Amino acid sequence: MTTPPLPSVPSDLTPEERDRFLLGLAVEQARIGWEEGGVPIGAALVDGDRVLAVGRNRRVQMASAIRHGETDCIEQAGRLPASVYRRSVLYTTLSPCLMCAGTALLYDIPRIVVGENRSFQVSEELLRSRGVQVDVLDDPDCLALMERMLAERPELWLEDIGEES
Amino acid sequence: MTTPPLPSVPSDLTPEERDRFLLGLAVEQARIGWEEGGVPIGAALVDGDRVLAVGRNRRVQMASAIRHGETDCIEQAGRLPASVYRRSVLYTTLSPCLMCAGTALLYDIPRIVVGENRSFQVSEELLRSRGVQVDVLDDPDCLALMERMLAERPELWLEDIGEES
Repeated sequence: MTTPPLPSVPSDLTPEERDRFLLGLAVEQARIGWEEGGVPIGAALVDGDRVLAVGRNRRVQMASAIRHGETDCIEQAGRLPASVYRRSVLYTTLSPCLMCAGTALLYDIPRIVVGENRSFQVSEELLRSRGVQVDVLDDPDCLALMERMLAERPELWLEDIGEES
Repeated sequence: MTTPPLPSVPSDLTPEERDRFLLGLAVEQARIGWEEGGVPIGAALVDGDRVLAVGRNRRVQMASAIRHGETDCIEQAGRLPASVYRRSVLYTTLSPCLMCAGTALLYDIPRIVVGENRSFQVSEELLRSRGVQVDVLDDPDCLALMERMLAERPELWLEDIGEES
C-alpha cells in the first residue's frame, strides 16, 4: 500500500533543509489522509538518504485502531533488521501519542522529528528520558492541518487519542 | 480476521477462575500463531462478560512490524468508543513491550492481565506509574510457549523486540 515510488533525498541540502524536505513527505501523507476523509497526520521513516516508507493515519480508511501516521509508516516499511531502525529517523507531522512513542522505543529509533506539538503533546518527556532525540520544527503547515481537523472534525480527533467526545 | 464466534464468559466463575479462563483465550491464540509459523503470543480484550476481540502476533503471517498480540487484538476489536476501552481488561500471554504498553496507555485501558513476565518485562513499571493495574498470573502454559520459542526460533524473537540477532 506504500505509494510508489519513494522519493530520494536531494544531496545538496543543509541539515535543516533536509529535515524540512523529509517532513514535507509526512505533510503530503497527512494531506492525502485528509482528502480521504481521515485524520490528517503523516509520517516518513528515513535511513540516511533512503526513504524507507511513508505512512498516514488510517483510522477511517481502514477502520483501524492502531494505524496512526507513525505506526502505519513503520508497518509500510515492513520487517526490517534491528540495525536499520537504530540508525533511522522518524518524521511525523504531530507529536507522537504514547502508542507511537512506544513503537519508536520498541525499535530504538534514535531520533524523531516532529512537525508541531502545540495541538498535542504527551510523549516527548518519556521519549527524551529514554534517550530519543526529539526535534520539534514548529511547522505552520502541520499546525494548519491540525487546526482544521480540530475545528471541523473534533469527534474524530478525540476518538483517535482515546478521549470521549 | 477475528476467529468467529467469540466465546462468552461463563457466569459461575470466581474472579481468579475468570482471569484464568480469559487468559486461556489468549493462550489459544498464541498456540494458533505458533502453528502458523509465527511468534506465539496472544491476547484478548474483554469488556465485562463480553469478549471484544482476540488476537495474536502476526509478524510472520502478515509481514507486520506492528501486529503484536495486544495490538492485533485491539485492531481486531475495531473502532470503539473511548468509554469501552476505559472499562476493559487486556489479557496477554506475555508482559507487554513498549509499543503494546503505549497502546494500552493511549486508550486508557485500566487493567492488564499478564500470563508471564519471566521471559520478557520492560513496561510494567511504566504502566503502573500511569495508573494501570498489572496482574501477573505466572502461568506455566504461557512460559512454556515462550521457552520453546526462545529455544527454537531465537532470531525471530529478537526481531520481534527490535534486538539484533
